[in-house]
Amino acid sequence: MKKWIYLFEEGNANMRDLLGGKGANLAEMTNLGLPIPYGFTITTEACNDYYEKNKVVSEEIKNQIFEYLKKLEEKQNKKFGDPTNPLLVSVRSGARASMPGMMDTILNLGLNDLTVEGFAKKTNNKRFAYDSYRRFIQMFSDVVMEIPKSKFERVLDKIKKEKNVKFDNELTEDDLVKVTKEFKKLYQKEMNQEFPQDIKVQLIEAVTAVFRSWDNPRAIYYRRMNDIPSSWGTAVNIQAMVFGNMGDKSGTGVAFTRNPSTGENKIYGEYLINAQGEDVVAGIRTPQPITKLEQDLPECYQEFMSIASKLENHYRDMQDMEFTIEEGKLYFLQTRNGKRTAHAALQVACDMVDQGLITKEEALLRIDCKSLDQLLHPCFDVDSLKEAKQIGLGLPASPGAAAGRVYFTAADAKDAYDRKERVILVRLETSPEDIEGMHVALGTLTARGGMTSHAAVVARGMGTACVSGCSDISIDEEKKEFTLGGCLVKEGDYISLDGSTGKVYLGDVLTKEASITGNFERIMNWADEVRRLKIFTNADTPKNAMDAVKFGAEGIGLCRSEHMFFQEDRIPVIRRMILSTDLPSRLEALKQLKKFQKEDYKALFTVMENRSVTIRLIDPPLHEFLPTEEEDIIELAKAMKKTKEQVMEVCNSLKEFNPMMGHRGCRLAVTFPEIAQMQAEAIIEAAIEVKKEKGFNIIPEIMIPLVGDVKELKFVKNVVVESIMKVVEKYNTSIKYHLGTMIEIPRAAILANEIASEADFFSFGTNDLTQMTFGLSRDDSSKFLKDYYNAKIYESDPFAKLDQNGVGELIKLAASKGRTVKPGLKLGICGEHGGDPSSIEFCHNIGLTYVSCSPFRVPIARLAAAQAALKQK
Amino acid sequence: MKKWIYLFEEGNANMRDLLGGKGANLAEMTNLGLPIPYGFTITTEACNDYYEKNKVVSEEIKNQIFEYLKKLEEKQNKKFGDPTNPLLVSVRSGARASMPGMMDTILNLGLNDLTVEGFAKKTNNKRFAYDSYRRFIQMFSDVVMEIPKSKFERVLDKIKKEKNVKFDNELTEDDLVKVTKEFKKLYQKEMNQEFPQDIKVQLIEAVTAVFRSWDNPRAIYYRRMNDIPSSWGTAVNIQAMVFGNMGDKSGTGVAFTRNPSTGENKIYGEYLINAQGEDVVAGIRTPQPITKLEQDLPECYQEFMSIASKLENHYRDMQDMEFTIEEGKLYFLQTRNGKRTAHAALQVACDMVDQGLITKEEALLRIDCKSLDQLLHPCFDVDSLKEAKQIGLGLPASPGAAAGRVYFTAADAKDAYDRKERVILVRLETSPEDIEGMHVALGTLTARGGMTSHAAVVARGMGTACVSGCSDISIDEEKKEFTLGGCLVKEGDYISLDGSTGKVYLGDVLTKEASITGNFERIMNWADEVRRLKIFTNADTPKNAMDAVKFGAEGIGLCRSEHMFFQEDRIPVIRRMILSTDLPSRLEALKQLKKFQKEDYKALFTVMENRSVTIRLIDPPLHEFLPTEEEDIIELAKAMKKTKEQVMEVCNSLKEFNPMMGHRGCRLAVTFPEIAQMQAEAIIEAAIEVKKEKGFNIIPEIMIPLVGDVKELKFVKNVVVESIMKVVEKYNTSIKYHLGTMIEIPRAAILANEIASEADFFSFGTNDLTQMTFGLSRDDSSKFLKDYYNAKIYESDPFAKLDQNGVGELIKLAASKGRTVKPGLKLGICGEHGGDPSSIEFCHNIGLTYVSCSPFRVPIARLAAAQAALKQK
Repeated sequence: MKKWIYLFEEGNANMRDLLGGKGANLAEMTNLGLPIPYGFTITTEACNDYYEKNKVVSEEIKNQIFEYLKKLEEKQNKKFGDPTNPLLVSVRSGARASMPGMMDTILNLGLNDLTVEGFAKKTNNKRFAYDSYRRFIQMFSDVVMEIPKSKFERVLDKIKKEKNVKFDNELTEDDLVKVTKEFKKLYQKEMNQEFPQDIKVQLIEAVTAVFRSWDNPRAIYYRRMNDIPSSWGTAVNIQAMVFGNMGDKSGTGVAFTRNPSTGENKIYGEYLINAQGEDVVAGIRTPQPITKLEQDLPECYQEFMSIASKLENHYRDMQDMEFTIEEGKLYFLQTRNGKRTAHAALQVACDMVDQGLITKEEALLRIDCKSLDQLLHPCFDVDSLKEAKQIGLGLPASPGAAAGRVYFTAADAKDAYDRKERVILVRLETSPEDIEGMHVALGTLTARGGMTSHAAVVARGMGTACVSGCSDISIDEEKKEFTLGGCLVKEGDYISLDGSTGKVYLGDVLTKEASITGNFERIMNWADEVRRLKIFTNADTPKNAMDAVKFGAEGIGLCRSEHMFFQEDRIPVIRRMILSTDLPSRLEALKQLKKFQKEDYKALFTVMENRSVTIRLIDPPLHEFLPTEEEDIIELAKAMKKTKEQVMEVCNSLKEFNPMMGHRGCRLAVTFPEIAQMQAEAIIEAAIEVKKEKGFNIIPEIMIPLVGDVKELKFVKNVVVESIMKVVEKYNTSIKYHLGTMIEIPRAAILANEIASEADFFSFGTNDLTQMTFGLSRDDSSKFLKDYYNAKIYESDPFAKLDQNGVGELIKLAASKGRTVKPGLKLGICGEHGGDPSSIEFCHNIGLTYVSCSPFRVPIARLAAAQAALKQK
Repeated sequence: MKKWIYLFEEGNANMRDLLGGKGANLAEMTNLGLPIPYGFTITTEACNDYYEKNKVVSEEIKNQIFEYLKKLEEKQNKKFGDPTNPLLVSVRSGARASMPGMMDTILNLGLNDLTVEGFAKKTNNKRFAYDSYRRFIQMFSDVVMEIPKSKFERVLDKIKKEKNVKFDNELTEDDLVKVTKEFKKLYQKEMNQEFPQDIKVQLIEAVTAVFRSWDNPRAIYYRRMNDIPSSWGTAVNIQAMVFGNMGDKSGTGVAFTRNPSTGENKIYGEYLINAQGEDVVAGIRTPQPITKLEQDLPECYQEFMSIASKLENHYRDMQDMEFTIEEGKLYFLQTRNGKRTAHAALQVACDMVDQGLITKEEALLRIDCKSLDQLLHPCFDVDSLKEAKQIGLGLPASPGAAAGRVYFTAADAKDAYDRKERVILVRLETSPEDIEGMHVALGTLTARGGMTSHAAVVARGMGTACVSGCSDISIDEEKKEFTLGGCLVKEGDYISLDGSTGKVYLGDVLTKEASITGNFERIMNWADEVRRLKIFTNADTPKNAMDAVKFGAEGIGLCRSEHMFFQEDRIPVIRRMILSTDLPSRLEALKQLKKFQKEDYKALFTVMENRSVTIRLIDPPLHEFLPTEEEDIIELAKAMKKTKEQVMEVCNSLKEFNPMMGHRGCRLAVTFPEIAQMQAEAIIEAAIEVKKEKGFNIIPEIMIPLVGDVKELKFVKNVVVESIMKVVEKYNTSIKYHLGTMIEIPRAAILANEIASEADFFSFGTNDLTQMTFGLSRDDSSKFLKDYYNAKIYESDPFAKLDQNGVGELIKLAASKGRTVKPGLKLGICGEHGGDPSSIEFCHNIGLTYVSCSPFRVPIARLAAAQAALKQK
């Protein structure tokens, strides 16, 4: 027979996988001799068994539960269901990884109409007994039977009103008897049966409810956000109750050994006298700061402080603890490594290294990479935010705080920007035509689109704030106004966006800039000492590039050359180029574009100094550059001396059924080699000139996208090399350069050995590679991915977290095939995954040379690369 | 130094790769002691060297040419450029595979103003000398300098008119001197320089022109159509001239040892007295049938017949020969295995087996699989066709002949069909809404779309004729009429389509049906004895299935269940299903659909009897079923009691950016399990009922499309299995079935080992797998693939011929991973490639179990599978 249950004394902190975090720590504390109410843990394996058996708790497990309950009875010298001296227990979830508030807890289990009376007599405190009973009825109804808590709150409020009292603890014994009666009536009404009096049924139902809660929607969502596999399961802890609600010498609280917001090395927490469970956080009565306990119950305080310190030293990390005081006796109910803000995390890490408590390596491994994001974007001034009114909530699509005046079109945004206004762009959804508007805006707000919508991707790339998919907004583009949360906002009015939370505020909330200084800088330096991966950035503009360098980027891994085409003065030229029906007029337009491109590249090389710059030749299908609005089409037709119909005909002829798999990337260069020629000339001329003017050692890296066959690469490479040779001749000089390719088509990965023979480097374009390998369109998948999460087919968005089994296998294959042909082949990734810690770890493990991510992910990538190196050791 | 050149006596028939077909056969004939003008062959390697050196003939090769020319001079006892007794040569291309008419030939090389006079004196025939010279000038100008032949023809015509003669051979010596002068003048005018007099320059230019002609557009096209790699190159044959234009005892001709149209075992050919080179085929003078030679030159005829017979016995195949008679002396200039119609190929093969000349296995290997296509579709009655007027030409999109009355909408076509008319559907382009119209039509004609357009793919699947992309047509849908080739055709008028050639005829041309009888049946039986691969068919309807069985299909490898939804009485129901906003109304619509589906499956099982039937669950994105025309939307809205706007909103919300990678295949079943439930129930109920009614042993194969992850397969499988269990319970019976998956997403191939654990079989969907592996949309690629052919990046359409290096590698990987987990795993392909011989050979070689192709490709697949098995031995 399998062992499904462990007494606390049988476990320890290393058994987290089996006992969950809470269970393992309760065991550890028990064995440290700390005051822990006695109990046992039902393993995570039992939870998995429950799901494997189609959501049934097996008889074997049930039997073991009652067997261990007997041991608990012996220890406590009370009997479960004993009418004179009943044992009460708590039933609490506890997964491997802490998932605060995601799953369920039931206290005071073991009470029914009979035992409550015995409990009252035994404790000589009927008020307390009924207080416990009414709490139990409510929790059981909520957690097990899914009767909304609010219905019980309403009953309680009614009685408090009748009695004219404000707080629960002002209710008398009789009041609570009445509450209990009313609660049972409510239960009867809701469930069409009496509140269960069989306490064994209560117990098994409660355990089942905890198992079930592992798969509730908020837990699934939390797991997806935090990369926790659904296969882990949750443990269940059953523990003898101790009571904080026995009177004025009793109480309950939560505390951190250090301040979780700032990291300050000072106890931080709250407690409530004569209270139980959720009372502290429920906010009905205002809790006291933990330091006040020194006055209320000085002995308890001393003991608490001493144990807290012991725990921090034992776990060598900041602890988050729950405790209860029952008639002057202190009990610890939980300890765990405390969640903290990024700011606090850095402070704690530095302090602990300075205290000699942990090593630098341990410090690096402790910091949650993703949390650094909080430190990298402008954020709201806390005081200013307090006064602001939140009017809406969308998706946190691109982090950072932004405040400015509202504009509804890219053109209006641009005009306002030129007037030196701070701008927020508000659109139903964005398209490539909005790029310039997004570029001048501090933030973008859209009504439609998800976390990977155009607006979200572009804003993250630019490092500006974005709230997308704010579906409650009603935009009137004609009138240039919108309503949201009952407020009417007109063009020019101020709003503020928090792209880290998705919140939308009315008015101009003060923001402050981010920078890497102090603890942050210190830890980044430690990370740089340890990591092997180089960290490059995806940057299209000098501004982007400067941000990235500030954040520690060692070069540009991806400059999307076409992003420069969307600026107001360029878009007409590129449109003319596309609509040219003969080579001479196309060449004429390209000549003009070349001037722009060369300027852009010179600016980029200048900012990047001696760092490497990788420029990808034009990638998107040409129709993305064409106008869609009728007025734009008419204007373009005028400028080109064509009819509107002619322009529309070309636009239509360029439409594709599946543009993502259409005429784009190097396929454009096969059809129009002159475009690649122009770009190659612009890049090399810019490099030669900046090299001469500034004396930097510039070795441009030219990257050919969407290659699927070595002949395709060879063809485009020949075009590029010939253009470069002409430039070099014209300038009568020489220049080193590298010519590489994106690996983003599955076929290129399969044939990477052939392709390597013609490439100086590979850059894995994991966005496209994921699309093609899954046969899944990034723009369309958000509509149905939720069904995949619900069915537990996918646990995370493959566009956010690299699919190591499938896409990763192709990357590994390509890397190894490429290096077989060229052992020193430079390999990197430049998709969205370049900023995702788990994907970065994968890149480190398979031996890539670099990752490239958006500027604001660079510090995250530096830390993630360091963690990957440390973990590999 | 490399040997770039071989004398004829140094070669033999097995050196075809190096010497080309013509060169190898000239060598073989020389060594057989036949009358062959002496000469030598420049190898195909020299051609490749020319291209590798950026289109330059190396000095080394030039030197060897003149070295071998010297040997030729010695043998012929004449000197190249000798003013008194000049050696003249022909320069002719000759690739490994015969490419008739694709490349260039130059005769009479070695003539200039000086040698022509010596030649005249030596032959004592000035007329003949100048006839040869004028021919040479024209050929050299055309082939080497690309001066259009027509310009020379015009000069010649003018002079003939002046002299009032009809044929070239009526021109006198003086006339030809004049023609020569005029030709040189024309050359001077066109090239701005004199006609080259240096015969060494002439020779090298001619050789270069032949190398160059390897890459002319028609050769590239021919190679692509016939799977000939561009890396093969062409050889060049330089041979002493013999002259058919020396007078009435001279002549030239071509002949086949058997009739290439019918296969009849009787000499077949033509000749012309006093003529050279192209005269026979140019059609200016009408040639004589070869049998007439017996009267003209009986000795030559006897010798010719004896050598022809010797050659056929030597090569053990029908020969296609060129010969020239110079003053009563017979020379052979070429022999090769003769091209023949499919009909002739079967006849020749059977006859030769019966004669004991070849074995059955050799006979099977001799027949060009693709040519069988000619025999599988209705064709025009030859006499009726002679009277028909061709009015247009489109792409030969789906083979077969069809004649009927023109209709312009699917609905009109259906009505006419119901009136028992024969129907031709004419559309700008077709969409899924036209399926029923195409189904009742004998042929479809479209103005737009290529060989892989919707119309083409659907028509090929149905086995009906289709001419697509007939861009000259001007359709007036309002008036229901079109004009083409100057003719106005109205609704109800007769036209006739030849889907094998793309020709469109006015009027009702008589057609006749195909069947597998006689030689065809005999050879198919031989093929079945030899092949290992099973041949299944892609069939969606009982009619399809019946055709396929008639052609020898052993089962259905792919029934696209959704194709049944497009019928007139079903489409409203499926639309209602899709537009349902709540589960109950969707279930209601599904209940109705189930009735239809069950009927369809019962009909299919009944036709297929004991053969296996594989049914794929619904695959395309739902919006494909929705109306696009405004009137249809209004009608649908009415039927559903919704507003037009509501219907349009749902239609729009279902639109996708990249539908090919969108919400389709098993992804639909994840979101709407009730659809898969309905289909599973319909399939199993149908199978149980037909099994009971007819006693067939039916084991339905249910196929889940677009799987990318084993969990996805497991999810849908569970839905299907649960539905099946309910049906089995309801019928109180038991039934065997198999549940497999398509492998068409690269990720599925990579993780095939995991997927195999849940699948009874794999069917490789090579259409989608090619799309995803290449990142190439089939619907969009035709726009730019031509640029890829021109740049020699691709040599064939990867959607027509399986890409063995890339996609094939994934298939191999998946097959081996799948079989590692399940050694007996049934594997097959069901994409368009299932009917392509080279792809079938690949499938055989990697050990697949079956291929599935459209009904009309089944005989081709049977033969190709047999050839693959024979080649592997």
